[in-house]
Amino acid sequence: MKKHRVTFLPDGISLEVPDGTTIAEAAKLAEVHINNLCGGQGVCGECRVIVLRGQAEADEASAAFFSQEELDKGFLLACQTEIHDGLEIMIPPESRLEEVKIITREASEISGRGELRPLARKFYLELPPPTIEDNISDSERISRELRKKLGWHSYEIALSCLQRLSLTLRDNGWNVTATVVNKGKNYRIVKVEPGDSTSRNYGVAIDVGTTTVVAQLADINSGTVLGVEGTHNLQASYGEDVISRMIFACSKEGGLHPLHEAIIKNINDLIGKLTEEKDIPREEINAIVAAGNTTMSHFLLGLIPCSIRVEPYVPAADVYPQILAREIGIHIDPSGILETIPSVASYVGGDIVSGVMACGIPDRPEVRGLIDIGTNGEIAIGNNEWLVCCSASAGPAFEGGGTRCGMRATRGAIEKVEISDGHLHYQTIGNARPRGICGSGLIDCIYELVRNEIISADGKFSRDRTDPRLTYQDDVPQYTIASGDETEDGRPIVITEPDIGNLIKSKGAVFAAIKSLMDYIGLEFSQLETLYVAGGFGSYLDIDKAVSIGLLPDIPREKIRFVGNSSLAGARLCLLSESALEKCLNISRSMTNIELSIYQPFMNEYIAALFLPHTDRKLFPSVRY
Amino acid sequence: MKKHRVTFLPDGISLEVPDGTTIAEAAKLAEVHINNLCGGQGVCGECRVIVLRGQAEADEASAAFFSQEELDKGFLLACQTEIHDGLEIMIPPESRLEEVKIITREASEISGRGELRPLARKFYLELPPPTIEDNISDSERISRELRKKLGWHSYEIALSCLQRLSLTLRDNGWNVTATVVNKGKNYRIVKVEPGDSTSRNYGVAIDVGTTTVVAQLADINSGTVLGVEGTHNLQASYGEDVISRMIFACSKEGGLHPLHEAIIKNINDLIGKLTEEKDIPREEINAIVAAGNTTMSHFLLGLIPCSIRVEPYVPAADVYPQILAREIGIHIDPSGILETIPSVASYVGGDIVSGVMACGIPDRPEVRGLIDIGTNGEIAIGNNEWLVCCSASAGPAFEGGGTRCGMRATRGAIEKVEISDGHLHYQTIGNARPRGICGSGLIDCIYELVRNEIISADGKFSRDRTDPRLTYQDDVPQYTIASGDETEDGRPIVITEPDIGNLIKSKGAVFAAIKSLMDYIGLEFSQLETLYVAGGFGSYLDIDKAVSIGLLPDIPREKIRFVGNSSLAGARLCLLSESALEKCLNISRSMTNIELSIYQPFMNEYIAALFLPHTDRKLFPSVRY
Repeated sequence: MKKHRVTFLPDGISLEVPDGTTIAEAAKLAEVHINNLCGGQGVCGECRVIVLRGQAEADEASAAFFSQEELDKGFLLACQTEIHDGLEIMIPPESRLEEVKIITREASEISGRGELRPLARKFYLELPPPTIEDNISDSERISRELRKKLGWHSYEIALSCLQRLSLTLRDNGWNVTATVVNKGKNYRIVKVEPGDSTSRNYGVAIDVGTTTVVAQLADINSGTVLGVEGTHNLQASYGEDVISRMIFACSKEGGLHPLHEAIIKNINDLIGKLTEEKDIPREEINAIVAAGNTTMSHFLLGLIPCSIRVEPYVPAADVYPQILAREIGIHIDPSGILETIPSVASYVGGDIVSGVMACGIPDRPEVRGLIDIGTNGEIAIGNNEWLVCCSASAGPAFEGGGTRCGMRATRGAIEKVEISDGHLHYQTIGNARPRGICGSGLIDCIYELVRNEIISADGKFSRDRTDPRLTYQDDVPQYTIASGDETEDGRPIVITEPDIGNLIKSKGAVFAAIKSLMDYIGLEFSQLETLYVAGGFGSYLDIDKAVSIGLLPDIPREKIRFVGNSSLAGARLCLLSESALEKCLNISRSMTNIELSIYQPFMNEYIAALFLPHTDRKLFPSVRY
Repeated sequence: MKKHRVTFLPDGISLEVPDGTTIAEAAKLAEVHINNLCGGQGVCGECRVIVLRGQAEADEASAAFFSQEELDKGFLLACQTEIHDGLEIMIPPESRLEEVKIITREASEISGRGELRPLARKFYLELPPPTIEDNISDSERISRELRKKLGWHSYEIALSCLQRLSLTLRDNGWNVTATVVNKGKNYRIVKVEPGDSTSRNYGVAIDVGTTTVVAQLADINSGTVLGVEGTHNLQASYGEDVISRMIFACSKEGGLHPLHEAIIKNINDLIGKLTEEKDIPREEINAIVAAGNTTMSHFLLGLIPCSIRVEPYVPAADVYPQILAREIGIHIDPSGILETIPSVASYVGGDIVSGVMACGIPDRPEVRGLIDIGTNGEIAIGNNEWLVCCSASAGPAFEGGGTRCGMRATRGAIEKVEISDGHLHYQTIGNARPRGICGSGLIDCIYELVRNEIISADGKFSRDRTDPRLTYQDDVPQYTIASGDETEDGRPIVITEPDIGNLIKSKGAVFAAIKSLMDYIGLEFSQLETLYVAGGFGSYLDIDKAVSIGLLPDIPREKIRFVGNSSLAGARLCLLSESALEKCLNISRSMTNIELSIYQPFMNEYIAALFLPHTDRKLFPSVRY
């Protein structure tokens, strides 16, 4: 088969690919990341590349995404263009998948709660050697000694451990270290090592996010966090969000495989980095706890996720079995276990369960809530007697999709905007030249536009206003945030009236979900003791502005608290405490999920919320503009 | 490397082997079986072969086993002779390992006890398809339906099963069959199949004996036994008894491996035969229960058995984990489980536990006993409140070892002897020309010799007697049972005074064990309601003669009952009933093992029992001679 050499700029990575390979596939082979929101269906226009050298033609579909000027420059969609010639390809900044900020911060109340009782525990045993008067079996001798330390239990012993047990004991003068894990209600001896190795007992907590995967390495004897590493979810090559990845996985037999492999590679890479940094053999890791949304948990364990996406939204499982990490190809100790935090429903996953546990919501009588805003806004509210939750499809607006100049919160994204005295100021991530606007920047924009009466409460521009930043393209009003002179690629960064419309729909869906949930349980917002805001988006949010546009409820601002990556924090708590994992199981079983798509009051709330801040101003008494 | 062609007669099997291979190794490669009591150490003299063609020299050690006449004929020890030439080798009848009678008979009280609740159960589920009002996860939908049939349990689901669950349910209109196994106190869903496959659910019960391996195939839905097959334990190539096999396994790194592989091959072959006969795919076998002595259970599971053999006689385990059969290379359904019946101690194994359960000893208040006589005599006595057991080293006499013309109970073995009116009559297995005397024949001999006053109660020949059958070799008296004219190989079959001495020691050890155990619990023989006699040897025994020589206690003969292969019967009961397996675990935990080697009264009893029938005639009131 004919092959062609392809070089990707600006990295200068070069490789040969067979004739007919798409540019997107070639990029994946080269491990060069290109945005791919729609999963390669040619409908999102996020994978723009420029062919600098060699022949390549845009197909008809691609052409629609570009101006004639861009087509002349060689702009193409990477996912729709086949390679039939040697090519030199520039990936423009807006198509690059760059390092995002990794959220590992936690609210102060999270760390260190609960007793230390890690999922894998090591016990040093100085066994009395057998005598003719005391010649019970080797395994029973170990169990007997463990009972003195752990209390009466029946201990199951893994076959692999049992097979060499007799030698391990005798070669080491009956002084050994037993590793014990909890499985269901039973104890299982998974490893017996020579001498005293109790001081070396490590675990990894993992937040398997759709965009990023973050891992924490911990000494699980002491609970000390030794390091944290994060990376992009390699599944991004198959689609930016869970929906497009599910479409990929379910489009053909074996489609799940590369997605499963991608997340396993992520995890192995992260564990590799963490263990190298700390000079700890990865074989000394005895337990992993992973938290992710329901789709990610399915990808992680290799469960077919295809029914999650379509009505009636059914996952294969919401409680996941304890497995050996090696069963899914994760390299730690061969007897190391992996627990996956249980989900509640297709769109309320283990990440939320983990967060609810980490925030201690089920521990106290006060009513508290947790909200995680991404493509879906997931909300959980409850106390020590009840828990309810729901998930609202917010659309991609807060993550930079669905708006003309939206982008993820990576370098060059406008994250803050202020308009005062007719002057507009903005701030970008990394103080780089602006490349687009991320979620928090968009919320700022809306807020500033309303406050300065540039748009009205329904999100429409005041057309009679004269403002050099307010222009029209094909009669659609748009407001310039950064002119072409200021931006990295020379294209102006604007926010259009349809963009504002999309953002209002997104914030309306989230607010309507919170309101519906409160009404369902018959409580007023004033009865919320705390509203925790989790996740990547949350951390950069200006709470006052988020309330003012009607995204978050109008409660005293000190009641709204960022908890950072509560999913990761919860996974770590589970790693360090059996009872935390038990709590997660109870949360997953007892939390009532309100399916908003069939909950009539939600639709009414949604329509009422399509206003800035809301059609019912009484709900936002503190908002003044 | 130089190779030589070797042909084994009478089978005519031919193969090429590298220069320096021993004849015994070549025979193993050719799958021709040669007796090998000592495991190839050149000390038992059981592997006699005749080199008919080609050059081969007896080493000095071998030479000691043969007369000059035999050496001239080409007699050699197969285990001590290296091959340096093309050879034609005759395996004489006494060295052939021939088919033994396979004991599958059971006492009538065994079959069909207990409720039918097999280890793997299949449930046909017609699941209501999910709706938006009822969109619990697929695994929870299955669990919910199972709870209706099985009661409230938390069901664990195997990862392999969960991975494709979503498709299996949807591709089959939500009508599926779930296979559920019991693990500890939990239920585990191991398989979900399309449609209704409940009618096809099979299991295998295996008695892993030192000499023979016997397997029963059962329909575990109905409890019907579909077939039974038995075969020689292939480990015989590594030694005839457990001690020599343990020596082999422990003599070098990896020595366990071939012994483990041998028993796995045995089991796979038996399952192959059984499933072919019944035209059942082996993948429809969902559960196996194996019962064996402690050493065999270790070999089966690949546990290092080396500490069993030496004081203080400690096994690696006496309770064995439930495993997947495929973990040890047994080919059945990939999710099929294997349970191994727990042992009590190094020399009281799962075969005895299985037998005690099968005989129902712990079910009733009456005191009953079970005795299994082989190289070891294992004895268990108890009722529904207590159980005690012990194991006495009886030596190989009852299995044909340790006596000049002893052999196993195979074709040509003299199994019955009677002397009346000065005439000796014998009967051989298969009515073949006699080749040796097996255990029951030896017991008959002793009995007849005492009864006819040819030997006295101390086992010595009356030297003043004139009897053409009584001759002397090197001043050692011997009694001819069959003359050279009558036997297959032309050598006379005799019983010598030392043979009788060995037999008296063997029977003395067994009786002393029973007596010590009764004294330990403070009971008289008359208080035994039943004494069950298990195992291969038992079935051919003449009870009256066994009592008369002082092997079995002198209780009313109707109280002594053969139970055949109670180990196999117990394994099958466990396969068909969770509660039977539970009972075995209780027996293994609660039975008190008396270590006879440190139990002083045993030694006194043993010395007292070295007489025919006993030094204390009051113990044998019914014996007259």
